[in-house]
Amino acid sequence: MTEMKKNTKEQILLTALKLFNKSGSHSVTTNHIAEEMGISPGNLYYHYKNKEHIIREILISMIEDFDLIWKKDADHKFSITDIAEITDRSCDIIYRYRFFYIELSTLLSRDEELSRIYTKIKRDRTKDFETIFHLVESAGLWEKPIPLNERSSLIFIAWSYIESIMTSMQTSNIKITKPNLKKEISRAVYLIKPYLKPEFRNMINVPI
Amino acid sequence: MTEMKKNTKEQILLTALKLFNKSGSHSVTTNHIAEEMGISPGNLYYHYKNKEHIIREILISMIEDFDLIWKKDADHKFSITDIAEITDRSCDIIYRYRFFYIELSTLLSRDEELSRIYTKIKRDRTKDFETIFHLVESAGLWEKPIPLNERSSLIFIAWSYIESIMTSMQTSNIKITKPNLKKEISRAVYLIKPYLKPEFRNMINVPI
Repeated sequence: MTEMKKNTKEQILLTALKLFNKSGSHSVTTNHIAEEMGISPGNLYYHYKNKEHIIREILISMIEDFDLIWKKDADHKFSITDIAEITDRSCDIIYRYRFFYIELSTLLSRDEELSRIYTKIKRDRTKDFETIFHLVESAGLWEKPIPLNERSSLIFIAWSYIESIMTSMQTSNIKITKPNLKKEISRAVYLIKPYLKPEFRNMINVPI
Repeated sequence: MTEMKKNTKEQILLTALKLFNKSGSHSVTTNHIAEEMGISPGNLYYHYKNKEHIIREILISMIEDFDLIWKKDADHKFSITDIAEITDRSCDIIYRYRFFYIELSTLLSRDEELSRIYTKIKRDRTKDFETIFHLVESAGLWEKPIPLNERSSLIFIAWSYIESIMTSMQTSNIKITKPNLKKEISRAVYLIKPYLKPEFRNMINVPI
């Protein structure tokens, strides 16, 4: 693909994401996206079959953004402050792709292929959470080892919590802003706090 | 209202609940409900304005079922086994009203009044979770007190986890059956396990 075509393809994703976040994907058509960009609908269809195709590509792009969080220099030594950084960067990504989290269950029920991709991603990425547990372990921050079934339950709860954070915020009348999102997501550190050595526990605190 | 009319009103709710659980509320009309019961649509409309009205009454009925969990004899002494019983009974209710949990975000986005009622319920019922913490405290099961912001975060996570349990199960390819639901909901006890006295921690275990 030429640079210009690649650029158009990316611009379509960015424009779609902007409009989806603004109005919800249900009220945005491919025509709206083409119009916003000043390109013809035909040009858009050259790159994407339909809106569902765009949404699937947005999901893949989000996962690539998440992957970058875990890319560290080989000699990077994990410490407790990394947890805050991982949380911060995750919040940025979740806020950037917020329409996806807000509409999650509707989107998945309407597009079987998206649902298939998402379920696979969820299964694969459980390892990211496993990675946190391993890093904390190798940095010697645990007070004692966490039994396997306890750890897998905490990971399942953490995933569910973050996956559904937008719905929880909405049903609790919490406005979806970046600072609010950060505050709510930060609560997830309490899932591991009691297992840390006492000297590290005090480094974890979320404003109420 | 006469007994017979009251009975019809209740039967409509039960029939609607059965059909909603079976096919999803979106594909069930008031005509389907009347037909299933062998009554005229006019008779149904005598009791309920529309489907949204029925769904709101189902939510209220669910909350009444939850209330019964907390009704104990005045001389009942709380013990660690009560947590398992509370979990069990909550699972029964959640499974009984499962369409509501499965469709939560769609239902709330489509009916402003339902959303308003639900948000109020969520706010009020945070006290149920507070109650668990108080009961555990008065039974002397905590190893040490849980700081307030930590407790409120754990309660928020627990609510979010249970509220979105059906979506989490679906996105993890876990079939929605009563035993599976019970297993996934039981994981929530791990949120409080690390705070219990060691002798009680071992009484909490969830099969993996």
